[in-house]
Amino acid sequence: MSEFFNVHSPSIAISKITSNREFPSLKKDLIKTINSLDRIIAEDIISDIDLPHFDRSSMDGYAIRSQDSNGVSESSPNYIRVIEEIKMGTQPSKSIKSGEASRIFTGGMLPIGADSIIMEEDTEELSDNFIEIKKSISIGENIIYKGEEIKKNKIIIVNGKRIRSQEIGSLLESGITQIKVYKQLNIGVLSSGDELINPHQNITPGKIRDINTYTISNLIKKTGSNVKNYPIMPDDFNKQLIQSKKAYKECDILIFSAGSSISYRDTTAKVIKNLGNPGIIIHGISVKPGKPTILGLCDKKLIIGLPGNPVSAVMIFINIVQPIIEQLYNHKSLKSYLNCKLDENISSKTGRVDYIPVKIISQNNKLFASPVLGKSNLINTLVQSDGYIVVPSEKRGLYKHTNVKVNQYE
Amino acid sequence: MSEFFNVHSPSIAISKITSNREFPSLKKDLIKTINSLDRIIAEDIISDIDLPHFDRSSMDGYAIRSQDSNGVSESSPNYIRVIEEIKMGTQPSKSIKSGEASRIFTGGMLPIGADSIIMEEDTEELSDNFIEIKKSISIGENIIYKGEEIKKNKIIIVNGKRIRSQEIGSLLESGITQIKVYKQLNIGVLSSGDELINPHQNITPGKIRDINTYTISNLIKKTGSNVKNYPIMPDDFNKQLIQSKKAYKECDILIFSAGSSISYRDTTAKVIKNLGNPGIIIHGISVKPGKPTILGLCDKKLIIGLPGNPVSAVMIFINIVQPIIEQLYNHKSLKSYLNCKLDENISSKTGRVDYIPVKIISQNNKLFASPVLGKSNLINTLVQSDGYIVVPSEKRGLYKHTNVKVNQYE
Repeated sequence: MSEFFNVHSPSIAISKITSNREFPSLKKDLIKTINSLDRIIAEDIISDIDLPHFDRSSMDGYAIRSQDSNGVSESSPNYIRVIEEIKMGTQPSKSIKSGEASRIFTGGMLPIGADSIIMEEDTEELSDNFIEIKKSISIGENIIYKGEEIKKNKIIIVNGKRIRSQEIGSLLESGITQIKVYKQLNIGVLSSGDELINPHQNITPGKIRDINTYTISNLIKKTGSNVKNYPIMPDDFNKQLIQSKKAYKECDILIFSAGSSISYRDTTAKVIKNLGNPGIIIHGISVKPGKPTILGLCDKKLIIGLPGNPVSAVMIFINIVQPIIEQLYNHKSLKSYLNCKLDENISSKTGRVDYIPVKIISQNNKLFASPVLGKSNLINTLVQSDGYIVVPSEKRGLYKHTNVKVNQYE
Repeated sequence: MSEFFNVHSPSIAISKITSNREFPSLKKDLIKTINSLDRIIAEDIISDIDLPHFDRSSMDGYAIRSQDSNGVSESSPNYIRVIEEIKMGTQPSKSIKSGEASRIFTGGMLPIGADSIIMEEDTEELSDNFIEIKKSISIGENIIYKGEEIKKNKIIIVNGKRIRSQEIGSLLESGITQIKVYKQLNIGVLSSGDELINPHQNITPGKIRDINTYTISNLIKKTGSNVKNYPIMPDDFNKQLIQSKKAYKECDILIFSAGSSISYRDTTAKVIKNLGNPGIIIHGISVKPGKPTILGLCDKKLIIGLPGNPVSAVMIFINIVQPIIEQLYNHKSLKSYLNCKLDENISSKTGRVDYIPVKIISQNNKLFASPVLGKSNLINTLVQSDGYIVVPSEKRGLYKHTNVKVNQYE
């Protein structure tokens, strides 16, 4: 029996791919800003105007000269004449002199001569034309100056950032209705195995329904990429090679499921070697589950061989493939987690990273992570779990009550 | 000037809505399982078959009678005759007697008579027909028994769960190609303000581009709901009422932006009172930013009045509206976060919950949360921030170096 050579740690496996000179770079698309949610921006965005575009009020109140409020208090107010109500969305028609005020609302444009806004709460209406001001305010109070949010020619959004709702808002505020984003990757999924049938087919003895095509294609969708699912391939090298060459032409990335190990039945490695150069970069990663994983680059296309076991395929996709895809999009993210206390001992081995599915249990306002183990790594362990924890390679396990970070599935 | 009456804490405001007898319940949709990613399941899913559907091998190796391995070791192996190679996806044609084995692969069907699988690594091929077995194994070793993953009639997925890629896999494994999910809500967004123009229009003095329509509609998309954006409404009660009544008929939920405060210009409350009963439930929430928020129910439709300030609108949507929408979908989720150290003091007031935007900074392998403050709460504070922290209402602030949980924006 052959052996795994060159088994690498997850982080080294990833960096051997992303630092390879054959690691591809992505094309760009020009799209409408309103349709850009969750896309990765492919340019630095520079504002071509000052924002706000005029000095404006941040409160409902009155625009005054601050010196008119000098020494003023609740017990010794000042009386001021209201000369205008500034309509929202219009330029004030009158300028403010000493002893005068204009009624103004949040977002309203500051009239010439005024240098501050006194809040409605600090005034008393005496008649239509006169108010009492009851507080001393300083220059600039409750004003947002022109350019205070964004100065003209300043970078607002940097290349590689994911577009969230606030980026859409900020771009549209600046009138930027089109932006460059990285082109969505087209990722092909190819499952193989004589035992596999399609989900709508009836089970006969020895057959199981193909699920990896669907778990993997939905994880691909979460990366913001397009998916193309190919028909199930039989355990036949020649037939696999024909279908893989077709998929290779049609896609930017190929992900094979099953056949990635090293027994004579496992043909994925042989197929990849026939697709392009340099071919296989990594065969075998020091993780559990998912050791028999292949990472390759064939003439600037990323090619992945995932283990056929459904839990291994998902864990390797999340922890190895997804970070590589994010790097392709030039995007870096910090993953959020939940802090929990482990509710039982977990054993592991040094020199190997373990991914352990856990259920999160809330008890007396504390969160506990309860491992969902099954000897057989079937998909149901993932259905029953809320997330997973990572046991680092230098640990021989984790004790009950250790604080762990639970990564929830996306 | 009028005052806010009945200002409530965020959690009480939410529960006053969700526990109201007018809180709506959602209809259900029957959809294809393969299209169900991120939808909320609206039924308990029960397996109608045992899975796996047959006893199968979890390893590449040989199916044997375990008693043939009794007392066997590396130095004293046993010799066994191989009578068949079990093809994947087929029923074995021969049963196993003492002294016999069948070659089997991961996922292969166990032949009659065999009770265990000896791994390939623990055997030596002597000829086509004979192997040496070098390890003692016990009954059941490396076998996944019929029904071991899912027993027939067992609940696999409970009502209210979000469909992730593994749920799709599990459902398809059981041959469940259609499921009931909660119908997607149609949510209408109505922004108002005489100062607002559309993003593609040129700015003239006093005008600003409408952004809340777009930030809010993209946050709505993230909840898995459909969005309908309505034209900007002028500051005119009658015109607002006509458009709101039209939107009320067309949507399940209405979200107003701006006009939710209590000055005479603020007409949202008056519009909501004219849409249905009981009308406004909450007016004013003890938070910063976002105090002037309206939550209402009009004849079993949820109606929200968000503040016009763009940061307030986003913060209130995330922290108040989104949890209410999740409850409508009958779905509960735990939000992940990042643990960081606060890198400066933050002041707050007791009796009020503060949402503070922060940038996450990595320094010497530690994460720090750096508040992104601006006196004016403009959208750029959210663009510059990676997430936000919540200062609870009983705190007067947080000291530098406090450990805080940063909620990343979705």
